[in-house]
Amino acid sequence: MNYKIGVISGDGIGPEIVREARKVLDAVCKKYGHEFDYTDLLLGGASIDVHGVPLTEETIEQAKKCDAVLMGSIGGDAKTSPWYQLEPSRRPEAGLLGIRKALNLFANLRPAYLYDELRSACPLREDISAAGFDMLIMRELTGGLYFGARKTEEVDGVRTATDTLTYNENEIRRIAKRAFDIAMKRNKKVCSVDKANVLDSSRLWRQVVEEVAKDYPEVTLSHMYVDNCAMQLVMNPAQFDVILTENMFGDILSDEASMVTGSIGMLSSASLNETKFGLYEPSHGSAPDIAGQNKANPIATILSAAMMLRYSLDLDAEADAVEAAVRQVLKEGYRTGDIMAEGCSQVGTVEMGTLIAERV
Amino acid sequence: MNYKIGVISGDGIGPEIVREARKVLDAVCKKYGHEFDYTDLLLGGASIDVHGVPLTEETIEQAKKCDAVLMGSIGGDAKTSPWYQLEPSRRPEAGLLGIRKALNLFANLRPAYLYDELRSACPLREDISAAGFDMLIMRELTGGLYFGARKTEEVDGVRTATDTLTYNENEIRRIAKRAFDIAMKRNKKVCSVDKANVLDSSRLWRQVVEEVAKDYPEVTLSHMYVDNCAMQLVMNPAQFDVILTENMFGDILSDEASMVTGSIGMLSSASLNETKFGLYEPSHGSAPDIAGQNKANPIATILSAAMMLRYSLDLDAEADAVEAAVRQVLKEGYRTGDIMAEGCSQVGTVEMGTLIAERV
Ligand SMILES: CC(C)[C@H](C(=O)O)[C@@H](O)C(=O)O
Ligand SMILES: CC(C)[C@H](C(=O)O)[C@@H](O)C(=O)O
Repeated sequence: MNYKIGVISGDGIGPEIVREARKVLDAVCKKYGHEFDYTDLLLGGASIDVHGVPLTEETIEQAKKCDAVLMGSIGGDAKTSPWYQLEPSRRPEAGLLGIRKALNLFANLRPAYLYDELRSACPLREDISAAGFDMLIMRELTGGLYFGARKTEEVDGVRTATDTLTYNENEIRRIAKRAFDIAMKRNKKVCSVDKANVLDSSRLWRQVVEEVAKDYPEVTLSHMYVDNCAMQLVMNPAQFDVILTENMFGDILSDEASMVTGSIGMLSSASLNETKFGLYEPSHGSAPDIAGQNKANPIATILSAAMMLRYSLDLDAEADAVEAAVRQVLKEGYRTGDIMAEGCSQVGTVEMGTLIAERV
Repeated sequence: MNYKIGVISGDGIGPEIVREARKVLDAVCKKYGHEFDYTDLLLGGASIDVHGVPLTEETIEQAKKCDAVLMGSIGGDAKTSPWYQLEPSRRPEAGLLGIRKALNLFANLRPAYLYDELRSACPLREDISAAGFDMLIMRELTGGLYFGARKTEEVDGVRTATDTLTYNENEIRRIAKRAFDIAMKRNKKVCSVDKANVLDSSRLWRQVVEEVAKDYPEVTLSHMYVDNCAMQLVMNPAQFDVILTENMFGDILSDEASMVTGSIGMLSSASLNETKFGLYEPSHGSAPDIAGQNKANPIATILSAAMMLRYSLDLDAEADAVEAAVRQVLKEGYRTGDIMAEGCSQVGTVEMGTLIAERV
């Protein structure tokens, strides 16, 4: 089949990890007889360098014509990038938020998985990690504090800043459905995280999630306060299957959960809208300090490409093949520096990409 | 000296842990020749049982007449407490938020400390905890999402809920000053946590914190995004001295930090206003499942009483004596069930209180 893929190389290590993901996708095309037609899209620092702004209408229009977009990492080195001198609202973050909103990517899926082979990198005590864990954070991505009205003003001569956290039932319902749908394909447990003892938006959240749950009698739903969840992720991550939460809580908890796996260089993410379209990117940042040194771990991006095959292109066998290739390479003992362990062979970004591509 | 202390016994294990803290304070009074005049105050479930609401004007007025308030834990068992049937806004949480606001307790101090004797309870891998850690979270407690306008309404037939996150420069300045003042007595490092790449309130926060920092040239200030902080607390908690943050982020991060120590039954907290007045309570919850069984660890409450001696009553030597007594008891190998370890002697709530009181 023929597919149109947008590619946002991004900043820092972005270009080099995307290059390896494309290498792996090339191997998939060859093996399965597909053709991927790639379009380069500008976002973040790369867009600022060309257009002076992190996101243009052109990028949005081009993205809309694609079946999916694969992205490296956005964001630069705060100390050296000229665009860190820009007004915050014009910085690359704005590009990221802008494209999420423009493409209506409301469902952010972030798996947090403890790899058997990488157990020694897990920051938790062995008796806690022994149970293993495999969670998926379903974060609402186009609402809440990120997109509410905000203003900074002087009130009686006192500088005052306000952000607004709003959710309506439709926004909550569609993300809750996504969480339950995916739970049905996993361990059939959804833990919805909120702060319903304080926030009105959380009380509505809880109510609507309960309503949606009625259509999924097989799924066990629980509710947890966000402060408690931040604790449980450290003490007992094995209890979680799907964690469903709003935008800001999801930002915090998904980063905590990734770190708890000890393998943030391995974790992928997908941001989906109501159609099959999605934007796929590693969970980690752009690590400008190691950019261009053939040190970055491309696996998170390669696994994001696998998610793209699965969720946007319906190519399940192909996605399985990429994931199996990654596991195979780990089993054979190849590691980039970030996940290096005794008795393993350290390889660079390019070599890791090649090894995985060869095993597809 | 003569002091007036308000006592909120609270719900669940509250009454029994407060009883032990008073036993220790009695020992302090005896040794140092003070007199504490205690007034019982109703809050939370106990107030609902008597008055039908979690907080009354009477409690506020009585509290204002005290030099400090010592509190157990508020909140009941969601399954069995009749007041969990109440509207959320009338529940005990509302009492807690109400008293914070009424007494202007804007500065919440939560130490998160790795006890040498309790290292084995730390959920982190040994090579991470080896460095030890000793942080203090300074959480803003009377602003932000907790106290902004909120509403739930139908907009064109769609249920919509809104909360508001507002900070003004005065609110930020006073909590920042507290953080820098306390950093001066510690390791002279403040890490201010925000989400300035997204929120206007965080951008103002960062700006005002920078302004305050100018008056503390000896203190090293850094800024960190909240999602990154949630990761750093797991990967490298030793890097932190004072963490300064707003209300909701502080709620999440301080719970995470307490859990990372592995000793949440040991961690105290203070909520202070502009004067010497403060409310002191354990960091942990009311654990209704073990209430009345002589199982609860009273140490967090005893250490909260020590903070009270130090911050509200200016009795530093007395506070030191209580803290030393706690350490002594740990060194001698006494443990409540929650921190029990091989080779130690398990004791109950009452015995632990007595052991500490005897060593003051
Ligand atoms: C860069 C930032 C605006 C972004 C967010 O907070 O959503 C990032 O942390 C993420 O999680 O993708
Ligand atoms: C009970 C709840 C309202 C409260 C809060 O969120 O402030 C609690 O979690 C705390 O940290 O004291």
